[in-house]
Amino acid sequence: MKIVLIGSGNIASHLGKALTENGHRILQVCGRNPKTTAALARRLKAEPLAGITSLTDKADVYIVAVPDREISAVAATFPFTEKTIVHTSGSVALDVFPVSFVNAGCFYPLQTFTGGKNVKYREVPVCIEARSEEATSRLRRLAKTVSGKVIELESEKRLWLHLAAVIVNNFTNHLFTLAGNILERQGLEFELLHPLIRETARKATAMPPSEAQTGPARRGDAETIRKHLQLLGQGSKNADIYRLISESIESSGGPVL
Amino acid sequence: MKIVLIGSGNIASHLGKALTENGHRILQVCGRNPKTTAALARRLKAEPLAGITSLTDKADVYIVAVPDREISAVAATFPFTEKTIVHTSGSVALDVFPVSFVNAGCFYPLQTFTGGKNVKYREVPVCIEARSEEATSRLRRLAKTVSGKVIELESEKRLWLHLAAVIVNNFTNHLFTLAGNILERQGLEFELLHPLIRETARKATAMPPSEAQTGPARRGDAETIRKHLQLLGQGSKNADIYRLISESIESSGGPVL
Repeated sequence: MKIVLIGSGNIASHLGKALTENGHRILQVCGRNPKTTAALARRLKAEPLAGITSLTDKADVYIVAVPDREISAVAATFPFTEKTIVHTSGSVALDVFPVSFVNAGCFYPLQTFTGGKNVKYREVPVCIEARSEEATSRLRRLAKTVSGKVIELESEKRLWLHLAAVIVNNFTNHLFTLAGNILERQGLEFELLHPLIRETARKATAMPPSEAQTGPARRGDAETIRKHLQLLGQGSKNADIYRLISESIESSGGPVL
Repeated sequence: MKIVLIGSGNIASHLGKALTENGHRILQVCGRNPKTTAALARRLKAEPLAGITSLTDKADVYIVAVPDREISAVAATFPFTEKTIVHTSGSVALDVFPVSFVNAGCFYPLQTFTGGKNVKYREVPVCIEARSEEATSRLRRLAKTVSGKVIELESEKRLWLHLAAVIVNNFTNHLFTLAGNILERQGLEFELLHPLIRETARKATAMPPSEAQTGPARRGDAETIRKHLQLLGQGSKNADIYRLISESIESSGGPVL
């Protein structure tokens, strides 16, 4: 298909790469940042555009990959209301597009994209939604060329999925940071935790995570919990996080095996 | 070396396997549970023992792999105070052994062990500590035969490390459970999150996790945070966890790239 990318950040960049690698053509890359726009357009062999006014009307799909709060501003100036235009956000409902956009939709890849890291796109689930049958089927075809897992999802379910993604990605990554800070203060290297981090992910994708749960809170080991809270310091934010998650583990567990 | 295992649970089982696979001999397995003790002894070609009274004095190292709160009871009845006796707990200090145990120590593998799952033991860091030079050097030799990463760690630093391990393993696994519950209520399969969970672990072991941090809290995206909190329901325990971790992310981040 012929695609126009609006946006030149991480998602535009990863998506553009996955699409061109799977035979699609990026006609234009439109972005406010001249430097990243030019660089991305060059990599994708597309025309760089500074403003939305010289957009081509020849594309099959227009992908708006900009920060959530800027989607409506893009939509407000987008000239082709009949075209299939999608945003890529997990947490923004379809009604961010005016009702006149009869083929508006969403194309949400469920993954964390950082800088130049390569992502195995075929494994990344892509959630699609659109206002018309025609746009839905076009997005489904497009998504299937880059991902082995395409699901149709209405806006509210997508928001729930996005919430779950924030929990397993952003929150666990922050827990890694907190653990790393603890080790650093003790003169220990974070690398010591790498095998455990890998094994935690491996186990939770090999069995239901509730069955993989171990640790002091799961065992009801009040003595170890007390020692840990003492290290963290009563009343510290880290102690609050520790206590709250431990309580949640205790209250969610069935009988300990 | 010649080893006696006291305990017949997960750690005894995984440790026994790793030790025999690396040329050590398990002389006896001593445990209260006759069934698991007999089964483990059979697998390790060792003698099963119900009580500590018929322990052999021929072993080089006695490994006490029992729940934390039972270590002192084992120590109280252990007959050979000159022998190298170790516990395997991250959170129990060496002084759980009476001072008369001049070669007491700790042999703590930093990993989560569940049921029959095989663990790549060579990658698992093993933390050792002992009261005497002789015992330390013996534990170091023993640990090096099963692990590529052996570190000497005093009790308090080991407790900090154990705390960090609880955070990256038990706590993140519980977040996976919470996310799975959310998806289940929406009729969505947890498998959708598998690629994201794997990528989260991969990224956090390829770069410092603080640099891998993304998401609404990192971006200061108050609107998305508000939507998520609304889904979770004000005042719910899950909303409390969400708010606390988000605040921690916000306050720990440097400038957003």
